[in-house]
Amino acid sequence: MKRVVVVGDGGWGTAIAIHLAKKGVDVGLWSHDGEYAKHLREVRTNPRFLPGYAIPAGVRVSSAIEELLPAAELLVSAVPMEFLRSVWSAHARALPVGLPLLSLTKGVEQGTGLRPTQVLRETLGARPLAVLSGPNIAWEIAKGCPTTSVTAGDDRALVASIREHFSSGAFRVYSNPDAIGVELGGALKNVIAVAAGVCDGMNLGHNAKAALVTRGVIEVARLGAALGGDRRTFFGLSGLGDLMTTCYSPTSRNRTFGERIGRGARPQDVIASTKQVAEGVKSAAPVHDLAKRHGLTLPISEEVHLILNAGRDPRASLEALMLRGKKDEAEDLI
Amino acid sequence: MKRVVVVGDGGWGTAIAIHLAKKGVDVGLWSHDGEYAKHLREVRTNPRFLPGYAIPAGVRVSSAIEELLPAAELLVSAVPMEFLRSVWSAHARALPVGLPLLSLTKGVEQGTGLRPTQVLRETLGARPLAVLSGPNIAWEIAKGCPTTSVTAGDDRALVASIREHFSSGAFRVYSNPDAIGVELGGALKNVIAVAAGVCDGMNLGHNAKAALVTRGVIEVARLGAALGGDRRTFFGLSGLGDLMTTCYSPTSRNRTFGERIGRGARPQDVIASTKQVAEGVKSAAPVHDLAKRHGLTLPISEEVHLILNAGRDPRASLEALMLRGKKDEAEDLI
Repeated sequence: MKRVVVVGDGGWGTAIAIHLAKKGVDVGLWSHDGEYAKHLREVRTNPRFLPGYAIPAGVRVSSAIEELLPAAELLVSAVPMEFLRSVWSAHARALPVGLPLLSLTKGVEQGTGLRPTQVLRETLGARPLAVLSGPNIAWEIAKGCPTTSVTAGDDRALVASIREHFSSGAFRVYSNPDAIGVELGGALKNVIAVAAGVCDGMNLGHNAKAALVTRGVIEVARLGAALGGDRRTFFGLSGLGDLMTTCYSPTSRNRTFGERIGRGARPQDVIASTKQVAEGVKSAAPVHDLAKRHGLTLPISEEVHLILNAGRDPRASLEALMLRGKKDEAEDLI
Repeated sequence: MKRVVVVGDGGWGTAIAIHLAKKGVDVGLWSHDGEYAKHLREVRTNPRFLPGYAIPAGVRVSSAIEELLPAAELLVSAVPMEFLRSVWSAHARALPVGLPLLSLTKGVEQGTGLRPTQVLRETLGARPLAVLSGPNIAWEIAKGCPTTSVTAGDDRALVASIREHFSSGAFRVYSNPDAIGVELGGALKNVIAVAAGVCDGMNLGHNAKAALVTRGVIEVARLGAALGGDRRTFFGLSGLGDLMTTCYSPTSRNRTFGERIGRGARPQDVIASTKQVAEGVKSAAPVHDLAKRHGLTLPISEEVHLILNAGRDPRASLEALMLRGKKDEAEDLI
């Protein structure tokens, strides 16, 4: 894996490009914006999405994917969920048949409920596909902070190769046979992260927040298992690990959104005041629908849905969660 | 359960006394120190162990347990592990036969490796015993912050009664049939909390810390299962929940200890400069021994043991953890 093309100039795409370049990989970075590609190429920084980190000289940047593709051995898809289908549909004809692809996208498609790799399969046809997901704040990876991640996919050779070629002294990659579970963890966690932010905004304390995350990962696992993942995967790095990072990092968008709600702001006002709507805000209704369709009880996710989409007061949510019927914990542990 | 005697005037004992008194329970609070009992009784504060919270007027305080026992329906043991055997041995003859006891102690006995309830059974003979454990920072409970906890024990009627009588709008109590697992979670988590502190002290970032806690709870579960607990219990409130609180709360003694090591202090110097040695520091060697005896690999716990007891540099530990053989995550998930 000597030549890799990263598609997407967001924080995550840029960070993985920097990481691979430092490892000596020949990296191409595709940006959808010709002007911005020029900036990335000439100034060697990404002020929009990853301010403060230099893009190594070896990274070739272009908005014309054809320029980057020759001799590529792997495509990396670092495209946000909402643009995934359109971006790859536009690239589809340019791509060599059978060129493997690694997906970094977290989320499910609005409307269809499809996972990123399902969208990629529809768009790009049969080719080896893998995912990489974990507690991965982009700028920490660009900085070289110690980080773990999980790769998974049906093609075992591709998974083994990614584990091998993406690992470094600062980036430890595990494999996991459960591709669906690894891919879903990062998508389903966001609603719980909004709840963690609400908890922070209401100053509920560490006891409440730990309970929320612990009970929250059980909800993620319950829904993720209904959608075809292995329940246990959600207690690993791509589930619990990613959830914890998002719930405890001060900079997480989902957590920060919830924090403002917890302090008393109205959801529509917070949405109106932010450039990019946090993923967990968009996911609350679909998660509610999925839970309903599968007959699952997800008390925390349901309260987030009610707060965001039905004008419920967070204090009423807290009371509802604390005063639910007395329960035996073992009924729903893993 | 109208009359309860709490034995132990530490932060946790005082907090639970305050909580029960607010619920209208007639609470007796035993202190080993006659002078200090007088202060608690007259000034109605506990400056040593729970500064800033008033002890309600109804709480009877004494250093003579006989004064508190008449008509008591439950004993609550809030005695630190190191004093557990001596305190209860001294009380044993005064206690009514068959009076049930709820243990709040977290830890295992030095030398014997016994759990608190095992020590209590040896000391007090047969009586209904239960435990209560969870993400429970004492002052947050005294303040009335929303909190969850788990009760467990062989006597199902006692467990149901505690779940019922200890619950309030701010304190949600779950039951769990796995008494060993619930009791062990709070003891085994402390070594991982020291590691989390080291991670903070070295400024490794959120990715690393989430990975540490996620992989850490797997170590807790692996050892806890070998000691007779149900592996799943360790992913619940008394395991993961308590671990998370300890790893992320700025005030946790175990975390703070680790943080100073991570900043470069020598373990012996930190120990010499603190009044009370953090539980995780005392547990590192016993956990190492138990893991060895049961043939378990606990990489994080082992590095903490080496740092504390063999002069290992935390940077060498980090490198060792990051560069271990490439692994499949599913091999050891739950």
